Amino acid sequence: MTKILVTGATGFIGRHTLAPLRARGFEAHAITFDEPDPALRPLAVWHHGNLLQRDSVRAVLDEVRPDGLLHFAWETTHGAYWSNPANLDWTAASLELFADFARAGGRRVVVGGTCAEYAWQTMPMTENQTPLAPASLYGHCKNAVREVLEAWAGHAGLSWAWGRMFFPFGPFEKPQRLVPKVIAGLLAGKPLPFDDAASVRDFLDVRDVGDAFAALYTSPVQGAVNIASGAPVSIRTVVESLAEGAGARSLARFGELKKDDGQPAELTACTRRLNEEVGWLPPKPLSERLAETFQWWREQRR
Amino acid sequence: MTKILVTGATGFIGRHTLAPLRARGFEAHAITFDEPDPALRPLAVWHHGNLLQRDSVRAVLDEVRPDGLLHFAWETTHGAYWSNPANLDWTAASLELFADFARAGGRRVVVGGTCAEYAWQTMPMTENQTPLAPASLYGHCKNAVREVLEAWAGHAGLSWAWGRMFFPFGPFEKPQRLVPKVIAGLLAGKPLPFDDAASVRDFLDVRDVGDAFAALYTSPVQGAVNIASGAPVSIRTVVESLAEGAGARSLARFGELKKDDGQPAELTACTRRLNEEVGWLPPKPLSERLAETFQWWREQRR
Repeated sequence: MTKILVTGATGFIGRHTLAPLRARGFEAHAITFDEPDPALRPLAVWHHGNLLQRDSVRAVLDEVRPDGLLHFAWETTHGAYWSNPANLDWTAASLELFADFARAGGRRVVVGGTCAEYAWQTMPMTENQTPLAPASLYGHCKNAVREVLEAWAGHAGLSWAWGRMFFPFGPFEKPQRLVPKVIAGLLAGKPLPFDDAASVRDFLDVRDVGDAFAALYTSPVQGAVNIASGAPVSIRTVVESLAEGAGARSLARFGELKKDDGQPAELTACTRRLNEEVGWLPPKPLSERLAETFQWWREQRR
Repeated sequence: MTKILVTGATGFIGRHTLAPLRARGFEAHAITFDEPDPALRPLAVWHHGNLLQRDSVRAVLDEVRPDGLLHFAWETTHGAYWSNPANLDWTAASLELFADFARAGGRRVVVGGTCAEYAWQTMPMTENQTPLAPASLYGHCKNAVREVLEAWAGHAGLSWAWGRMFFPFGPFEKPQRLVPKVIAGLLAGKPLPFDDAASVRDFLDVRDVGDAFAALYTSPVQGAVNIASGAPVSIRTVVESLAEGAGARSLARFGELKKDDGQPAELTACTRRLNEEVGWLPPKPLSERLAETFQWWREQRR
């Protein structure tokens, strides 16, 4: 069975790749510092390791000898990750991981990238046309990892792909982020004040993100691929959909807050590569995924 | 006294920065895996360490607590360094070094970069105009380090500069490279066959490169700065100058080899930033530096 080592496998994105990898016939191995929660246990072979300690990573690579690598582990402290100096450590650790993976006989690397690598100018952002001009340390560090991987993979005999994620939401999202915050407010019956919430984003359920990464790994596609729905909506649409599902439409109050002019009006993705080259399309409409996510959060409260 | 930690201090570039740093009133500290040769010993405080082992670097940083960092250490195996996978290790080690230097209280970082970071299209190459589009893994890795350093330095409260070197020559150059090879041939009285040798390059004596880096460190200039003479010449001019100095002009035979069409006709540097902002100019003409270099190699033979 083809072995794939997943990093960040207890994190928001990585955990949702494990079932889709298994569904495609792969044997997922995970390297983690945390204890995986019980639901994750049967989905992978778990190895204790710290990605910021190279020796421990090498030991796992030597033991597993994975064919594939799905790399998601990174600094993700809410808010802080945009400029945290730990971004340098994760850049370094990523490159060391790639080098050690190749030395251990690895064949294909797929990495979690971000729409923050792009210049946020012309929409939709398109893999081989939109300039790469990050506005954050996080975006620069991800982009630097991609630059090195792109230049090196051919020399190392590796194939590689780079999934640029847009706005994932869903189970296990950090509670400070939009969707969990709205759901928590609705469940508490509190009013939710917003500005006009007209900003448009490409939201995709993280279960679909995980499946898209498994599909990307399975495909022969190389290079950067946007991981997005291709069906962007306004933040208002998301909030209204959740509020309606909760039967609490009146709690969503638009126009009560002053607009944050620092936020771009639109962050959207061209998904031609994902849809046509990888052959992956979102299996369910956004409204359904939002309803399922609402239900998931409600169950967490019990 | 201001302490500056120099990496690669036994290497071709780093060793030539030690005397210029001292001349400007700095206390140079060096971290090295090799034993420094006797001539270098008095020019720095030497610390044993391996830049590819983070703990050993941290120990030196904690002991020295340097104000400044001059970073040159990198994979430099002749020929192989363009595509060697060790470029990934050095990229990672550089970022870890910067992070640890800042944590240890460092203030200013100056790094050895390369003209191989630029797209080799329009000449002369100019820091803020020429696109960064390396053709090699080496160039991509250096560029990735620069991208991260540029994005991070402000967050870390560091000032930074990046010296892009062109074609250094001089004492301790690798014998397989142009100037040492020509000198070795001349000293052996052997004919030196060339193509038309019309390619134009920006050559700068490595002693001047070392002095320019010390000047760059001392200046308040931030960002990328070309480290070059601003007076490019053809390879033929260099060979003829050396052959004439040896009284052996007839050994230089142009037009005897077929031209390598893969080599760019011109690789030249705009030196306005170096000359006007850093305030550094080469102290001697190329012909004089070539004669001194010839003399240095002659003395090595004794």
